[in-house]
Amino acid sequence: MDQPQPAPGSPGSPEAGAAADSESRDKTPRTERGRRTLRKLLDAAAVEFGERGFHDASISAITRRAGTALGSFYTYFDSKEEIFQALVRHMSELLRDHVTPEVQAAPDEISAEHIGLLSFLGFVREHKEIYRIIDEAEFVDYASYRRHYETTVERMRQRLEAGAARGEIRADASEVHAWAIAGMNVFLGMRYGLWDETADIGEVARIANDMLANGLGKRD
Amino acid sequence: MDQPQPAPGSPGSPEAGAAADSESRDKTPRTERGRRTLRKLLDAAAVEFGERGFHDASISAITRRAGTALGSFYTYFDSKEEIFQALVRHMSELLRDHVTPEVQAAPDEISAEHIGLLSFLGFVREHKEIYRIIDEAEFVDYASYRRHYETTVERMRQRLEAGAARGEIRADASEVHAWAIAGMNVFLGMRYGLWDETADIGEVARIANDMLANGLGKRD
Repeated sequence: MDQPQPAPGSPGSPEAGAAADSESRDKTPRTERGRRTLRKLLDAAAVEFGERGFHDASISAITRRAGTALGSFYTYFDSKEEIFQALVRHMSELLRDHVTPEVQAAPDEISAEHIGLLSFLGFVREHKEIYRIIDEAEFVDYASYRRHYETTVERMRQRLEAGAARGEIRADASEVHAWAIAGMNVFLGMRYGLWDETADIGEVARIANDMLANGLGKRD
Repeated sequence: MDQPQPAPGSPGSPEAGAAADSESRDKTPRTERGRRTLRKLLDAAAVEFGERGFHDASISAITRRAGTALGSFYTYFDSKEEIFQALVRHMSELLRDHVTPEVQAAPDEISAEHIGLLSFLGFVREHKEIYRIIDEAEFVDYASYRRHYETTVERMRQRLEAGAARGEIRADASEVHAWAIAGMNVFLGMRYGLWDETADIGEVARIANDMLANGLGKRD
């Protein structure tokens, strides 16, 4: 994966260049049944890569776990690298789809960050494999790894910007704040979502959000 | 590395049990020359693992980079896994030794966190391989990976506790705050230290520390 396929629409993607080449044949399923098979393959890949890691994982084990024929795999993917890359994007989107509706229902930006962290911690408890999969992308497909964080943080940055425009948080909230909050959430998820099954994630989110809202300064 | 060697003095370490076994023969260099050779091997390992990753790295390439004989390697390490494990601990200690004196010179706890982040961002710029090495430990030697973060965060927690006792920060500062700050620093280091060579790390540290000190709340 020295040459990871760029995101659709990104600079250097097939659409952006003149040559829509045969390598990037459209493998998007066109039927409901196809979409179900693809989803089964991705769910099976999450278990296989999550349990065994990229190097020990195999395509035949993925199709066995998915209960699909080997041929179905090659309908959608050309290689283990390709399904891994699709899985990183899939996990990133699953996380987004889990967190976003809850965050959007928040009454203000500080509450949105509170709900966002709590929702993320809940997601980690249900999908413990997310750390191993996203983190292994650093070694298997760096472009996917970086894209996951860049897209996630960009959503947070836009949220902060909108909150600042509404006067709910400090006016100078910026990209630096968004990366700081993302790192905070990822580490709290590792420590209290992944490593400690019994931690009270509601209490963790409350403490972290209070620090985010008010800082470390002394309280009277 | 399913059975990583425990830290000296930790529960389960040879000293803690009755059987000081032959497997854990003491390979600590006893001479200045030996210490220099060991350090050369670790420095070479940082470059080799940092550039090629664990799987593609080789012992012969490490000794070639270090300018030492292959026999010297086996004086100190039994395997590629063992030098990798030693390297993770070495990087963790290098980072600690870089940051700690600067942090200890700070006039108060909020300033200490500011200096700690700035010092960390400077370290990342000088040792870009630290991300790849620590992060790959998640897959090569999970115990080392977890120990790196646990010992780093424990130092931060103690610092917060002492700052709270001195009345410099909120009295309820806890382990959750320490993990949150650690995550913030690691992500800012990745984004602005590793990915962006031109970012003004002084400005990044200033923004992050101001958020840490005062929170996201509106300023008048």
